[in-house]
Amino acid sequence: MNIRESIISKTSVSKEAARKLSSISTDIKNNALLNMAKGLRENAEKIVSANSKDLKNGEAKGLSPALLDRLMLDENRINDMAIGLEQLVALKDPIGEVLGMQLNADGLQIGRVRVPLGVIGIIYEARPNVTVDAAGLCLKSGNAVVLRGGSEAINSNIAIIEVISKYAYEAGIPNGAIQFIDVTDREAVNVMLKLNDYLDVIIPRGGAGLIKTVVENSTVPVIETGTGNCHVYVDSSADLEMAKKIVINGKTHRPGVCNATESLLVHKDVANELLPAVCKDLQDLGVEIRGCDVTLNLVNGAIPATDEDYGTEFLDFIISVKVVDSIDEAIEHIYKYGTKHSEVIVTENYNNSRKFQSEVDAAAVYVNASSRFTDGFQFGFGAEIGISTQKLHARGPMGLTELTTTKYIINGSGQIRK
Amino acid sequence: MNIRESIISKTSVSKEAARKLSSISTDIKNNALLNMAKGLRENAEKIVSANSKDLKNGEAKGLSPALLDRLMLDENRINDMAIGLEQLVALKDPIGEVLGMQLNADGLQIGRVRVPLGVIGIIYEARPNVTVDAAGLCLKSGNAVVLRGGSEAINSNIAIIEVISKYAYEAGIPNGAIQFIDVTDREAVNVMLKLNDYLDVIIPRGGAGLIKTVVENSTVPVIETGTGNCHVYVDSSADLEMAKKIVINGKTHRPGVCNATESLLVHKDVANELLPAVCKDLQDLGVEIRGCDVTLNLVNGAIPATDEDYGTEFLDFIISVKVVDSIDEAIEHIYKYGTKHSEVIVTENYNNSRKFQSEVDAAAVYVNASSRFTDGFQFGFGAEIGISTQKLHARGPMGLTELTTTKYIINGSGQIRK
Repeated sequence: MNIRESIISKTSVSKEAARKLSSISTDIKNNALLNMAKGLRENAEKIVSANSKDLKNGEAKGLSPALLDRLMLDENRINDMAIGLEQLVALKDPIGEVLGMQLNADGLQIGRVRVPLGVIGIIYEARPNVTVDAAGLCLKSGNAVVLRGGSEAINSNIAIIEVISKYAYEAGIPNGAIQFIDVTDREAVNVMLKLNDYLDVIIPRGGAGLIKTVVENSTVPVIETGTGNCHVYVDSSADLEMAKKIVINGKTHRPGVCNATESLLVHKDVANELLPAVCKDLQDLGVEIRGCDVTLNLVNGAIPATDEDYGTEFLDFIISVKVVDSIDEAIEHIYKYGTKHSEVIVTENYNNSRKFQSEVDAAAVYVNASSRFTDGFQFGFGAEIGISTQKLHARGPMGLTELTTTKYIINGSGQIRK
Repeated sequence: MNIRESIISKTSVSKEAARKLSSISTDIKNNALLNMAKGLRENAEKIVSANSKDLKNGEAKGLSPALLDRLMLDENRINDMAIGLEQLVALKDPIGEVLGMQLNADGLQIGRVRVPLGVIGIIYEARPNVTVDAAGLCLKSGNAVVLRGGSEAINSNIAIIEVISKYAYEAGIPNGAIQFIDVTDREAVNVMLKLNDYLDVIIPRGGAGLIKTVVENSTVPVIETGTGNCHVYVDSSADLEMAKKIVINGKTHRPGVCNATESLLVHKDVANELLPAVCKDLQDLGVEIRGCDVTLNLVNGAIPATDEDYGTEFLDFIISVKVVDSIDEAIEHIYKYGTKHSEVIVTENYNNSRKFQSEVDAAAVYVNASSRFTDGFQFGFGAEIGISTQKLHARGPMGLTELTTTKYIINGSGQIRK
């Protein structure tokens, strides 16, 4: 079998599994999630041993310490993955909910019932925890999943999949509901991107390069996640102490994630007061400042920001800074460089707060809070499969509901069109 | 300028227009719709004269009478288009609605506000009324629209666009909100399908060939509309008089539309009683019967159905017929040949009604009613831009709400992540 045939042979089983899975009871799904968690704990040693092969290969290939850390699994991390599955049990099963049922003029009862999407393809990179998270979320929402993880984690992923699929199927989940494409050749991704007859949606999870490849080449519908070049704009009316805390939290709380703050825009009227102070604090925390000319005059140790810096999601202890003449200039800057993820204004001015929320086009637009809150758990919705930065179907944190669709059900008593 | 440059120069103006349009008041949008309707009536003669060129060209090209009829515009049809625009005024403006606003654990007020998608590309074929319908729906939902109609209607479309855009802009709609790509070369479609930086979504409206081309080649998100190979399954327990009416209505009420019934599945226990009667009535109305062997034995004048017939959306006075052994066989047949549009069961059996609605995967699943009801007006939602047969973003009749997305707005008082 060539790559295409082998992938189709797997996904066609997933398609069959998805049909059965769509009407499986919440109890069976929940028991399967608990069993999968148990399986992870019982087989932690085996998974750690497979993971150590990946780590050895990664070191040989010269992966960065940060990447190696993302890749690394130990008993604690495996336990965290198991807890993640157990947490899904408590979340409400979205499947079967009936929405907006009403009578039309002909006496037809018309409503929508929530149903799974079908088969979800997930294309991701080095983090093996995505394998478990995605499998759990897809299962709870009644979808089959076809996972394709990065080559760096191939041994870990195969070991994880062996465990969670076995324990899921033992608990009554149809065979094929959790599939893993173990072909590390990039061709496997290209094949998946054209499998319109087998995959209902593809969700890429990873860096900007992966997401771009998927968006530009997939004919299967895609939900774009993740790239976050998030700005904080400090308005002339801002409470500067609040602004400082929001900037420092957004930048340094966890710089490697998509809702981290990457760029600071400051109104010229408060730049003199704010910038030296906030940049000093950032520098003390190890953050490099890349600024415009005004910033360079105000901040010791800052280096000039290029146009490319303003367009970059650093995911690191680096921030770009620009002093702007007005809120309009800030909004234009965000329009030009933003990735429609999370954008923040710090202001005490009512009209500017409304203007910013109205005119900035992003998944999440904040007034006076850290960009770090864009997250399913923080919003109070529970686990998520990613942050959608596109406009179709889902925007912002994508939880169980966003992994479903609806169909109209119509109950008649013989009505025909006049 | 080559085709690509000329299309980008138009769509970049649309992108700017979309930004302004997103915050324009309902009043301005409604006045523009009324003005556009007025413009159509005032310029009916000019439009009819442009249309007569298309008709002449169509005759010369040998278009079928049905296609020429679809293409033809007279004062009545132009008045209908104007009425369509006026009806949009009464529909609720979806933009600005706030959904699910609540406090999270940190005291952040989090909700979603409904916003336009941005720039919508519509690729369609010969019917010039789509030009007006689509422009009106996109305008009312705050979106800019880039229209690309078929070459057969090029003169009519240019005349219509000249009128409606002029009258819209006069009423305060930003210039570029209604664009028409007047390049009839097919290359124009290929260019649009890759314009991810300018178009937020593409909606194809037309035959199966057009839709397939768009779905298979577009990297811009697509909402698939329209192909409807709709089945009626008559269960063994059905009220056969009701079944007859539903089949005849579904097939003959308006055979050329996507919610027409194309295929009849009959349980073997009622085939002897139902088929001769319903097929006689269909034949009397001019319908050709293409059936399985059992059907051929029961129905005079029926011809054998091929596998291809079962997969065909005839859009004509033709119906495929198959006798099945069970509801499961019917559901399997629909799974294999259906296009996920509208599917009907006629039954008096409670369990079978639930089984069919649960297991059949389509935009609309009916019990005891004609497939012809899948329509925005019939459902009671008002005008629609098409029937989505895909699962992402919108499913079933797509009205104003389906032309929008949401963004999260978060109001804080200095919250940072702990």
